[in-house]
Amino acid sequence: MDLAAGLASILGPKGWVPGADARPWSRDWLDRHGEAPLGVARPGTTDEVSRVMAACHAAGVGVVPQGGNTGLCSAAVAGRPGAVILSLSRMAGIAAPDLASGSVTVEAGVILANLHAALEGTEMVFPLHLGAEGSAQIGGLIGTNAGGSHAFRHGMMSDLVLGLEVVLPDGRVWNGMRAVQKDNAGYALRKLFCGAEGTLGVVTRAVLRLAPRPRAKATALLALPDMGAAVAFGSRLRADLGDVLTGMEFFSDLGLDLALRHVPGLAWPLGSRAGAYLLVEVASTSPLVPLDEMLSGTLEWGMAEGLVTDGALAANEAQRAAFWRLREEQPEGQRLEGVQLKHDISVPPGRIAEFVERGAGLCQRLLPGVRINPFGHLGDGNIHYNLSPPAGQADFAGLGPEIGLELARLADRMGGSFAAEHGLGRAKIALADALRRPVERGLMASLKRALDPAGGMNPGVILREDRQE
Amino acid sequence: MDLAAGLASILGPKGWVPGADARPWSRDWLDRHGEAPLGVARPGTTDEVSRVMAACHAAGVGVVPQGGNTGLCSAAVAGRPGAVILSLSRMAGIAAPDLASGSVTVEAGVILANLHAALEGTEMVFPLHLGAEGSAQIGGLIGTNAGGSHAFRHGMMSDLVLGLEVVLPDGRVWNGMRAVQKDNAGYALRKLFCGAEGTLGVVTRAVLRLAPRPRAKATALLALPDMGAAVAFGSRLRADLGDVLTGMEFFSDLGLDLALRHVPGLAWPLGSRAGAYLLVEVASTSPLVPLDEMLSGTLEWGMAEGLVTDGALAANEAQRAAFWRLREEQPEGQRLEGVQLKHDISVPPGRIAEFVERGAGLCQRLLPGVRINPFGHLGDGNIHYNLSPPAGQADFAGLGPEIGLELARLADRMGGSFAAEHGLGRAKIALADALRRPVERGLMASLKRALDPAGGMNPGVILREDRQE
Repeated sequence: MDLAAGLASILGPKGWVPGADARPWSRDWLDRHGEAPLGVARPGTTDEVSRVMAACHAAGVGVVPQGGNTGLCSAAVAGRPGAVILSLSRMAGIAAPDLASGSVTVEAGVILANLHAALEGTEMVFPLHLGAEGSAQIGGLIGTNAGGSHAFRHGMMSDLVLGLEVVLPDGRVWNGMRAVQKDNAGYALRKLFCGAEGTLGVVTRAVLRLAPRPRAKATALLALPDMGAAVAFGSRLRADLGDVLTGMEFFSDLGLDLALRHVPGLAWPLGSRAGAYLLVEVASTSPLVPLDEMLSGTLEWGMAEGLVTDGALAANEAQRAAFWRLREEQPEGQRLEGVQLKHDISVPPGRIAEFVERGAGLCQRLLPGVRINPFGHLGDGNIHYNLSPPAGQADFAGLGPEIGLELARLADRMGGSFAAEHGLGRAKIALADALRRPVERGLMASLKRALDPAGGMNPGVILREDRQE
Repeated sequence: MDLAAGLASILGPKGWVPGADARPWSRDWLDRHGEAPLGVARPGTTDEVSRVMAACHAAGVGVVPQGGNTGLCSAAVAGRPGAVILSLSRMAGIAAPDLASGSVTVEAGVILANLHAALEGTEMVFPLHLGAEGSAQIGGLIGTNAGGSHAFRHGMMSDLVLGLEVVLPDGRVWNGMRAVQKDNAGYALRKLFCGAEGTLGVVTRAVLRLAPRPRAKATALLALPDMGAAVAFGSRLRADLGDVLTGMEFFSDLGLDLALRHVPGLAWPLGSRAGAYLLVEVASTSPLVPLDEMLSGTLEWGMAEGLVTDGALAANEAQRAAFWRLREEQPEGQRLEGVQLKHDISVPPGRIAEFVERGAGLCQRLLPGVRINPFGHLGDGNIHYNLSPPAGQADFAGLGPEIGLELARLADRMGGSFAAEHGLGRAKIALADALRRPVERGLMASLKRALDPAGGMNPGVILREDRQE
């Protein structure tokens, strides 16, 4: 029996999509990558995942785990024709949360927004938020160690995973479904699988850590002269309001322009435009905390210092949502403008403005007039440093790889990362080859060989397939 | 040239302590373990560490990294005669903190309390606190992934490490000294080395994450009927005060009794005794947060519900320190009582009372009259479930291993860990052998083989030396 027939027999008609019908799963979200797979396996249980993995392992065929397929680095589609895509979307169970312990057990295919909804009405939340939460699945979020806008306060996915169940490349199942923060009984396997992008095994279940639900929030939208002012003001916000600060998001005037021009239903609530904008949110479990007063106090200081030139506090939920939309539609505004280059950079938060300025210098040197749209997360130094071509030009004149490499080198020299929260996938392999020092590359290759000696797990992601280390 | 002469020549007279003079480094803190080493290497630079490692690797001699030697699991002393102890205590530099980014770069030999002191007068703190902070060193805290009393709020060491420099078993140096939270450029090496107890390499430097300094605190000492009430009250504290809650420490009446009896200078500030006690601390960066009012409100609820029977708010810093001492002297009170059995358990926080009760049942069944002194961290479910012999008995009648195994099995069945924050070291290898499922043991053995193929790094810690997986 050939592999496709074997998988069809393991999974039944609901669980096996032959290659000819696999188009909906075979291309990445930006439609830039994805070879035609042998088919799509859609198991309904961990046992089925295990049998699929064992069959592919025996046949020597690569397996590509796929969650909501919202990734930006092509880690969830096939790099070569003939691989099996393993979609976890049918495994979408959410157990009753353990509110007294602050944890919940979920299957890998749970969509993030559905987990948020399942916790509504309880005193706990799952504190991870990002733009793609309506589609992104827990397994993919774990695989990419997703971050988002609350990461500086509540952590990235790796900080929120208490326990994991992982099916290994040969089909064996690692049951690490403990439900405690403190577990030092050996190597940190749960941390290693977070961010491994499905190259060491496939996550099937997880125990996630919850946080107390805020009962009050205050949200401000601010205009500031430039990113230097934003960094200085952010530093003060953290010092004054650190316990309750849950969001510090920045965007640029160019980004605002693109969003207002292309995305329907957006409106600018401030009376003026400026060099940089900040969305600040504070939240508390206790209604006794005077959030408005605290936020206003720091705002007044910022205005007196000339760091903030204009601002508004959200008066109600609708206005709060409208403020957040201005930030969250930044990628969409730029996407609708046309061709773009995306860079997912992090630097030490105090050096964000320096990166933005030095980055602009090198981009303008390489491609004069290129339009730079940096936005992101002030609290953790994560800059989505995205580019549109110079006005009137259709593309980047083939300079994309060189610009990406130079920006990555700059981030690296500044103590940062060229792959902050989106992962490496296949899309950033060339950057990794250029930037990883030999010792680091060797360590990662050793880990891959140790846990996936046959090389069948998501081949070509994180490490180049053909590379002998 | 033999190895000792070679190391003496690399390190000079200040850096090499021959075996005959090595006694101060050769036994663990509880003086239970430690074979005579070949000598103690005390390098002053990463380059010297690298040369020591390369020399030991070439000679096939095991290396045991040692920090402050405050560990409780014998990971920092030699399991066999003739190993080289590698003490990092001379590498104790602290760079000027990057306050705008919230990070600081330190060498591995920095004592935790010295780091706290170095940040005094700034707006940031390093938010890790534990009893041994006057001796424990950063490298050891990273190696054991230390937790402590603030971990539920600010994370364990692994959550606080942004970047690492590690000398590998063969002397190569991995420079992972990035200074950002968001770094997904490949496998989570920094997380893997945290908690590896020096078995994969030796940490020489780190970039640590800081937190905003609290400007106000409120501390309460409470008496409660039993641990069930403590868990229920803790759940409410988290829901009401989650943003500002920084400590939730519990101890027992037996523990209080031992501490008051043996430790000079302790006094009991409440008018009554009870079944369980809680030390609750809230802290805020903002003086506008009404901490006393918030804490009192939840206390009043607890008293009305019968969950809290007595309590006091610290009126000043001296009283706050006195409250904390009552909790922190729990281990010392029991140590001075005589022989003891220590267990470092974690369970899901909502199940702490259940563990304490079921644990008591199995301990009393095995050794009637045994005195049980559970204390620890309510927020993360970490129970130091320590035992003294029955009154009038000198020891545990040889039942220590059986009691330890049964408690570990109970924690495991409840979704917890038998090695919560102290690590495994050599002391818990038998427990690990009994409790680890074969897949997990195989994964850990694969990692060890991949990163330390010659097996010279801290042999016999985490994994048994002679075990072929």
